Amino acid sequence: MSDLTHLALPHIAKLHAYTPGLQPTEPGWVKLNTNECPYPPSPRVAEALVREIGAGAEAGAALRLYPNPKSAPLRATIARLHARENAALTEAHVCVGNGSDDILNLLVRAFCTQSAAAGLTFPSYSLYPVLVGIQDGRTLEIAFGRDLRLPVEQIAASPARAFFLTSPNAPTGVAFANADLERVLATYRGLFVVDEAYAPFARENAVPLLAKYPNLVVVRTLSKAYALAGIRVGYALAHPEVIGLLDRVRDSYNVNRLSQAAAVAALEDEAYYAGVIARVVATRDRSAAEFAARGWFTYPTQSNFIFTEPKNARGESGPAVAKAAYDFLCRHKVLVRHFPSHALTAPFLRLSVGTDAEMRVLSETFDRWLKTPSA
Amino acid sequence: MSDLTHLALPHIAKLHAYTPGLQPTEPGWVKLNTNECPYPPSPRVAEALVREIGAGAEAGAALRLYPNPKSAPLRATIARLHARENAALTEAHVCVGNGSDDILNLLVRAFCTQSAAAGLTFPSYSLYPVLVGIQDGRTLEIAFGRDLRLPVEQIAASPARAFFLTSPNAPTGVAFANADLERVLATYRGLFVVDEAYAPFARENAVPLLAKYPNLVVVRTLSKAYALAGIRVGYALAHPEVIGLLDRVRDSYNVNRLSQAAAVAALEDEAYYAGVIARVVATRDRSAAEFAARGWFTYPTQSNFIFTEPKNARGESGPAVAKAAYDFLCRHKVLVRHFPSHALTAPFLRLSVGTDAEMRVLSETFDRWLKTPSA
Repeated sequence: MSDLTHLALPHIAKLHAYTPGLQPTEPGWVKLNTNECPYPPSPRVAEALVREIGAGAEAGAALRLYPNPKSAPLRATIARLHARENAALTEAHVCVGNGSDDILNLLVRAFCTQSAAAGLTFPSYSLYPVLVGIQDGRTLEIAFGRDLRLPVEQIAASPARAFFLTSPNAPTGVAFANADLERVLATYRGLFVVDEAYAPFARENAVPLLAKYPNLVVVRTLSKAYALAGIRVGYALAHPEVIGLLDRVRDSYNVNRLSQAAAVAALEDEAYYAGVIARVVATRDRSAAEFAARGWFTYPTQSNFIFTEPKNARGESGPAVAKAAYDFLCRHKVLVRHFPSHALTAPFLRLSVGTDAEMRVLSETFDRWLKTPSA
Repeated sequence: MSDLTHLALPHIAKLHAYTPGLQPTEPGWVKLNTNECPYPPSPRVAEALVREIGAGAEAGAALRLYPNPKSAPLRATIARLHARENAALTEAHVCVGNGSDDILNLLVRAFCTQSAAAGLTFPSYSLYPVLVGIQDGRTLEIAFGRDLRLPVEQIAASPARAFFLTSPNAPTGVAFANADLERVLATYRGLFVVDEAYAPFARENAVPLLAKYPNLVVVRTLSKAYALAGIRVGYALAHPEVIGLLDRVRDSYNVNRLSQAAAVAALEDEAYYAGVIARVVATRDRSAAEFAARGWFTYPTQSNFIFTEPKNARGESGPAVAKAAYDFLCRHKVLVRHFPSHALTAPFLRLSVGTDAEMRVLSETFDRWLKTPSA
């Protein structure tokens, strides 16, 4: 370890950075690896952006000024949107982040340390332990069984100061019923964070429960269902006191002007996104049924991705088979995600739901793999 | 303290959030309080944004994809720009943040804690102690005398793991010579962070020193000289090993697509910004001379703001006089900044350099205050 690395805090010097999914810069890929939406955002987003940028001699002039430090108009829009599910929601229940990763980061920094553990399930969003590691914190992991039933009693009895649950789960896509979340909340006294990045694709969500449980935090993102991964907007819904705590850690200008404007426009175009979500869900369900019909074990998904266990031509599955399929797809410019480090995930591939055409390419590429795996 | 606040880490529950300058949403203000640029950004910024957004049926489609997780094209542009001052600079020497506040946050999280203090001068950018407080860290403060000479020996001998120096200083505008920084660097073995938010308005900057001192970090922002406070882009220049440490703490997608595109376009239009900076500097120097001519003590500034000690009609200065002047300006819709909490800053006002017309309004409003202070 050099002198410079020695200057860093010991836990930072030892850290491994989070590995995001590949973001290829060259064209030609069928990109089904980071759960982006295959359809463009609402046309109102581009309109709002062009309006915010301005035109003529003063084009861009608004950008010289700092953004609204509280994302006030955006928070009002978010509160209005969710008031349907929960009439008591106001701006004071909303914190906006530079992506939901920013929100998760604020939660970890405000609530978790060595003596206040972060509870996680395994598998779940792989960023959580990275964020806890950056804070030199401690995680308490509860492993799912292959059936992926929510371990209600274990979570309810967890000594974790904050528990992070991804629902629908990543990378399996399995959603947990509000009835089960309520069974946790009836007992658990820590902060219960339900990361609902994929909830717009699910049958149910935890927003209505916020009225009843002050220790519940619901996290959302515009990266998936809203087709806006490129602008980095996510948010937390929680009791105003929890929001106040996050605001003490949040950077005053964490969300830039353009992203605030884009997010407001997107959230207001509910009809457009209802259509996008319906298309993704239809493609997902058809595609998941196809994988199941191949005889590949496939989790019931309520997200915009499919977690399936490929079988090779000899009917074998397992980590090596999944890796071989992944590599074959990669060689043929189809990018999916493989999580090889753990026994539960290693035999599977996670396939983001693309357009129907992209899912056909995916399916045909799997067919070719089955025929000539070395191609 | 309620049960919810009790869930937060004790130091967070006690924290006060950072107070950013007011960002009024209603029109009609002469806004000289947060050191924004009075001129719009380069016209190429709006062009680049419109290009990134796209047009026609696919407008906004690029926004559905995650941004470049390493801001690679932007880092290449930054490295090219600074290679003139330091030929050895490459992309590996650059970390891009969601504003320079993000960079400062990464530095504090990677290097500072209770047992590894953050060194600061007083006064300096008031965000530093807030960031240290969020990490439950410890600060070591070195107070400037009224002459604002750099306390070279004290900094050089500081046991701080990282020392944060704002140069030009905020809120006084006083710049420190490279010769003095080198005297610190000759001895100091911690990480020496020179926050150069205002360096484009100064005669000298520390970038050339990076080649010689691996423990030097230079922090820059596009919020001031580049007229892009609204897009949130800042960066660190440092030894690749330091950049690697920051990257372990940095969120993979901390800088959104639009801000990356806008920043590249701005940094490439050097001729435009040379003109903007020359105008701001000319207005600043004329305006600072006027305040001095009133008999108001005014620090020699190398930034885009003026720190002056107002005297009332009876020739008195001091915290109450500065507060009275601030309040008068506020009542007449001229917004400046007053830092009342400390003896060195309380008798002063910080005036961002606006257009010539705005500076005339400011000057006339001070004249009216002198005549009828209760108006």
